[in-house]
Amino acid sequence: MSQTVAFLGLGVMGGYMAANLARQGYTVQGWNRTPQKTGVNIAASAGVQIVPTLEAAVTGAKVVFSCVGDVPDVEAVLLGESGAARYASPQTLLVDFSTIGSQAAKTIAQALADQNLSFLDAPISGGDVGAKNGTLTIMVGGREADFQAALPYFEAMGKTIRLCGPVGSGQAVKMCNQILCALNLVGICEAMILAEKQGLDPQIIVEVCGTGAAGSWALSNLGLKVATGDFTPGFMIKHILKDLRLVREIAATARQELPGVALAEDLFKRVEALDELAREQGTQAMMRAYRN
Amino acid sequence: MSQTVAFLGLGVMGGYMAANLARQGYTVQGWNRTPQKTGVNIAASAGVQIVPTLEAAVTGAKVVFSCVGDVPDVEAVLLGESGAARYASPQTLLVDFSTIGSQAAKTIAQALADQNLSFLDAPISGGDVGAKNGTLTIMVGGREADFQAALPYFEAMGKTIRLCGPVGSGQAVKMCNQILCALNLVGICEAMILAEKQGLDPQIIVEVCGTGAAGSWALSNLGLKVATGDFTPGFMIKHILKDLRLVREIAATARQELPGVALAEDLFKRVEALDELAREQGTQAMMRAYRN
Repeated sequence: MSQTVAFLGLGVMGGYMAANLARQGYTVQGWNRTPQKTGVNIAASAGVQIVPTLEAAVTGAKVVFSCVGDVPDVEAVLLGESGAARYASPQTLLVDFSTIGSQAAKTIAQALADQNLSFLDAPISGGDVGAKNGTLTIMVGGREADFQAALPYFEAMGKTIRLCGPVGSGQAVKMCNQILCALNLVGICEAMILAEKQGLDPQIIVEVCGTGAAGSWALSNLGLKVATGDFTPGFMIKHILKDLRLVREIAATARQELPGVALAEDLFKRVEALDELAREQGTQAMMRAYRN
Repeated sequence: MSQTVAFLGLGVMGGYMAANLARQGYTVQGWNRTPQKTGVNIAASAGVQIVPTLEAAVTGAKVVFSCVGDVPDVEAVLLGESGAARYASPQTLLVDFSTIGSQAAKTIAQALADQNLSFLDAPISGGDVGAKNGTLTIMVGGREADFQAALPYFEAMGKTIRLCGPVGSGQAVKMCNQILCALNLVGICEAMILAEKQGLDPQIIVEVCGTGAAGSWALSNLGLKVATGDFTPGFMIKHILKDLRLVREIAATARQELPGVALAEDLFKRVEALDELAREQGTQAMMRAYRN
């Protein structure tokens, strides 16, 4: 049974990740709170065994992966009354891919350690495309031995995989990552709106600025979408808002003002308030704040 | 004499650019307001003929390049009492590399056209390294025929060379470029200060975030400098402050609020107010605003 793993949370991200584990030959017991979801189908088609209960997923699993959402979801799935900790064998390694902040990760790790279970926080970036293609960036916090044990699995799901420090460190790096994503977008929105006011072709901005000191992944991949109003989600506004809330909490604890983050959060909230659709539009819909 | 060109303004940027023209076999008549400067020496060592007066530089030149600084400098060098327009032969093409905003470029182009002279605005990016290696990005505004005439010279100095539209369009793109540079830096400063507060190695941020959706030229090239306090100038705070002032003027004319630009400008001004050194530190010294 050493190759059997559990995957809890088969949203689009989790579905693709579980699918990539199954394709590498692992026996993956997949569970999702809501059975009828796109991610569940993606996982099932790749050979993930979809099971009806969390208990059935965790039983016999050497490693338990989870990818669920916000702090309360992770706590419920790992530590709740019917959570993974209740059904996992002693010494089992639990790896959580959700973005929940360092403090929550440390608290969860301690609660699991008290039950003789190991934990890695392993938030990811790279979006649904990265999850599908197995090219995610995986930012890991925890013990070296646990990281080494999880590495073969990570390699089925990601490309840039890095142990960043003790438990919580993956989350800490992810917070910095989200700050960069949010501020890069502020720059793109303001550059694109000024390009428009000056009568410039936005493609010129992407091509000319993208090759030099102003270049970024975001400009190359989201620049034209910002300019043309293509707000199809890669990463949704509701998710960056959750992440920036976590960033704000950490900054408040550290008594560090982050005026750029505050601005980005304000812009996303203004977009969120525009209509029902906004929360599930891509982060590039920040541009709507400049058009309203 | 068809291969003779003038180069007005031999600062570090202009010095390297004139040097690259000379290395391509052009006869370059170089002039600088202040004769004893690093850039003058750079140009002279590469074979640029340093001449004592602007008149001597412009006389007999088929194309007159200028790279001088702010709007009044460009106006003085091109249109002033002893400016290039006075000494240039009819039909001469004048090309200015300074960042001066679209409106000034259009005004200068009109004044030169009245004297039967052609004009291209051609602001650059890529810093002293790009100027030295001939890998600048050159954003050009003007007529297609003038652009084609200047292209062989541009190719001696730059790598990404693009006609962006009519006169003023090079400036317009440069404004967008500077917005992107400024906001990318806000993100890097806030990510690095939060990394520090969380006890992370800044190198991990550069390596892990740099490969994914948070990546940028600025993170790869300035990230560690921000974190470690290496404020050696690539591009100086006083220069980005000039550029952001121009951006603000354009935005005001267009009645477009740019809160991110306002924040970046405020941060740079706070650094500028710290001490005498600050103005000539690199833009990555924005980090000092977060440490004070």
